[in-house]
Amino acid sequence: MTELPPSITEFTTFDGAKVGVGTEEAKTAEQQVRDNDSNYVFHSWSAQEKINPQPLSYAEGPWIYDYQGNGYLDLGSQLVSANLGHAHPKLVEAIQQQAARITNQNPAFSNDVRSELAKEIVEQAQGDFSHIFFTNGGADAIEHAIRMARLTTGKSKILTAYRSYHGATGSAIMATGEARRHGNPTTDGDVKHFWGPFLYRSAFYSTTPEEECARALQSLEETLVYEDNVAAVLIESVVGSSGIIVPPEGFLQGVRDICDRHGALYIADEVMVGFGRTGKMFAYEHGGADLQPDLVTFAKGVNSGMAPLGGVMMNEAVYQRFADKPYPGGLTYSGHPLAAAPGLAAQKVYREEKIFEKVADLGERVIAPALQKIAENHPSVGNVRGKGFFWAVEFVSDQEAKTPMGGEAMGAFGAELKKAGIWPMVSGNRLHFAPPLITTEEQLNWALEIVDRAASVVDQAL
Amino acid sequence: MTELPPSITEFTTFDGAKVGVGTEEAKTAEQQVRDNDSNYVFHSWSAQEKINPQPLSYAEGPWIYDYQGNGYLDLGSQLVSANLGHAHPKLVEAIQQQAARITNQNPAFSNDVRSELAKEIVEQAQGDFSHIFFTNGGADAIEHAIRMARLTTGKSKILTAYRSYHGATGSAIMATGEARRHGNPTTDGDVKHFWGPFLYRSAFYSTTPEEECARALQSLEETLVYEDNVAAVLIESVVGSSGIIVPPEGFLQGVRDICDRHGALYIADEVMVGFGRTGKMFAYEHGGADLQPDLVTFAKGVNSGMAPLGGVMMNEAVYQRFADKPYPGGLTYSGHPLAAAPGLAAQKVYREEKIFEKVADLGERVIAPALQKIAENHPSVGNVRGKGFFWAVEFVSDQEAKTPMGGEAMGAFGAELKKAGIWPMVSGNRLHFAPPLITTEEQLNWALEIVDRAASVVDQAL
Repeated sequence: MTELPPSITEFTTFDGAKVGVGTEEAKTAEQQVRDNDSNYVFHSWSAQEKINPQPLSYAEGPWIYDYQGNGYLDLGSQLVSANLGHAHPKLVEAIQQQAARITNQNPAFSNDVRSELAKEIVEQAQGDFSHIFFTNGGADAIEHAIRMARLTTGKSKILTAYRSYHGATGSAIMATGEARRHGNPTTDGDVKHFWGPFLYRSAFYSTTPEEECARALQSLEETLVYEDNVAAVLIESVVGSSGIIVPPEGFLQGVRDICDRHGALYIADEVMVGFGRTGKMFAYEHGGADLQPDLVTFAKGVNSGMAPLGGVMMNEAVYQRFADKPYPGGLTYSGHPLAAAPGLAAQKVYREEKIFEKVADLGERVIAPALQKIAENHPSVGNVRGKGFFWAVEFVSDQEAKTPMGGEAMGAFGAELKKAGIWPMVSGNRLHFAPPLITTEEQLNWALEIVDRAASVVDQAL
Repeated sequence: MTELPPSITEFTTFDGAKVGVGTEEAKTAEQQVRDNDSNYVFHSWSAQEKINPQPLSYAEGPWIYDYQGNGYLDLGSQLVSANLGHAHPKLVEAIQQQAARITNQNPAFSNDVRSELAKEIVEQAQGDFSHIFFTNGGADAIEHAIRMARLTTGKSKILTAYRSYHGATGSAIMATGEARRHGNPTTDGDVKHFWGPFLYRSAFYSTTPEEECARALQSLEETLVYEDNVAAVLIESVVGSSGIIVPPEGFLQGVRDICDRHGALYIADEVMVGFGRTGKMFAYEHGGADLQPDLVTFAKGVNSGMAPLGGVMMNEAVYQRFADKPYPGGLTYSGHPLAAAPGLAAQKVYREEKIFEKVADLGERVIAPALQKIAENHPSVGNVRGKGFFWAVEFVSDQEAKTPMGGEAMGAFGAELKKAGIWPMVSGNRLHFAPPLITTEEQLNWALEIVDRAASVVDQAL
């Protein structure tokens, strides 16, 4: 068996110097990053003086490295975006070639890589879609999907789940159901929240997936009726940041039917789960072979996070609304060629290397049984759930009451994983197991074994 | 004198093939872009079936080329973003190097190029700023600046000018004063608009710049008092899309004083004019050597539009508000390394090649007198105004009534410019003269002569 993580001997600094890992020079370089970061960079979602962000020296495949040369499996794929890992040669080449061609081309022009990428996505997606409006990321994709839905239907309200995250700009943060919306002075009074299905912590006192599905759908439809004037139901095909919650069988088709009955559009938020994360190109495909949302938002995995890129894929009805009348929205970098080029390269890698199929197979054959075993072996594990390469391991201090495990034990768990070579994505009382989609069976088994061992640390807190 | 635009013989397609311009192969490649674009790409601010976007084959320096090999001076710098022109060798090199290092690094980590860029901007900017929060573009920079202002002051209202454009996401489109806000179903009831100074079409019946300045300030202060609870005045340091309107001397300092008197923050929107467009790093510097806004938003010129990047620069008071309490906002690609790398390279080029000083000199010595002469020579030109490399030539059908020139004459004007090798940025009855900042004196003189000749076409419509 290969040594994991693979060791490195040197890295390149931003000014092109080669530096040996763990040397005095490396320490100086690291200190410079830490100082500049602390003195000049304002960080997302943070109390600025309570954080101490880790600098990275190098990244390749599923591995990231610090300045001492310690390697870590990137278990969260950065923010669930590095689907093809780091520095994928074909994506790097696509960027380097495009950089010497046209990078800055405004959306009033047409562009070859931008339009090839749009064609590729529309043709590969399940369903009969029409056009793609490119954005810079997931938040603005949500903004524009909401706007398109409101203008197409002539209605104003948007329904989203309490357990959801949809981005941090004006309307997207209001669409977000979870706590990150709080304390936020933005307003969009026409965004309303509902309770989605989540059997482990059911809002409907259900005991089976079938019951949870039926009750969640009934609740959604009643909420929609009581709100009235609903333009769209916006829903993550698998809930991401709020806990990696896979909807029960039949739920997404139920959402589709409810939307059809009431003249609302169905917007699938695929920002985190699109492009293979759950073993399908888009996670809504798990809802059935005929299922098609009206609007699909994406970002992250579209180009493996190699450059900021997002988009909205729309059906013909939405497109036709803006065929003769101008769409009141846009952005300077809609379909930026430097972001589209690795996007086009990524689509080819996904297809040619059968990445989605590989994820479906390894998810079911390797990850699911190993995590199930971890749940059985560890009294601190309350629930494991997920699909493909997207899983949550939820720790509790009381199995009956499902009391979330405290921060101290979770901190010790995270430290144990880091010590063993895994950079974990820990969110509250959960581990999010979401490695790059190119992680091999051998690497997965190695990581799952470490997670199993580290879970014993949490058991000790019981 | 060199032949202008410089001719090219071939270009590279997205799949790496070399194609001779004007050949059958080039025609086929062009048709493929046009077909894919029409079939799959949804465009900003457009009625989708009423547009016919031009594909570009190649771009270098201030020049862009079609598939027949026709070259054009990029007079609008794409969307006033290509400050260092196209394919600048140092920026291309920075991208190519960074692509092979770390591109996708989430904002919870610290990163060398991201933090070096933040340091560089804070150190070079006029005033005593604290930290930078990076975004993907101008719109989300505005979103976060508004949020920071509201949370720092504990107040809710944002005042912006009617003649303004601030972006197209939730709160940014509401902050926008001009017509692009219309028909937009987004809500932010706490954004209010005021009339800014614009002597040529004064809202205050002024006859001199001094009068316009005093009256606009009085009106702003009264609006602020009548609105009450104002968190910030948000203002473009030189109004961009709404007409390239340079504020009269003393106006920006007056805004600063009003904000101070009423406990509101002053947000300078430098998305379009930042990084040298007007001959200073930031255009607010024209307001006086001691002038400092509380928040500065930027994008575009920060990396010459080579990759999506924007940001908010904040003063110490804003930073301190979030030192111990979390900032409720963020994004996956805050300070994306592949966008920061050309940003850092661009700052070095700006500084080492004295680009801002060159722009100030050529703007005053070459552009201003030539446009002034054009105004004198052509009865259809009602007004020319601007600074540095950022000018508007406004055409009217009646000098007294200042009636905007009609679309047909403006269309003929644009066609004339294209025929002579200039890709114009025409907005309503105005030409926006905003070439890349690396455009030489010889190239400027060549372009100004063409604009002079083409203006005769508009005269004929009188």
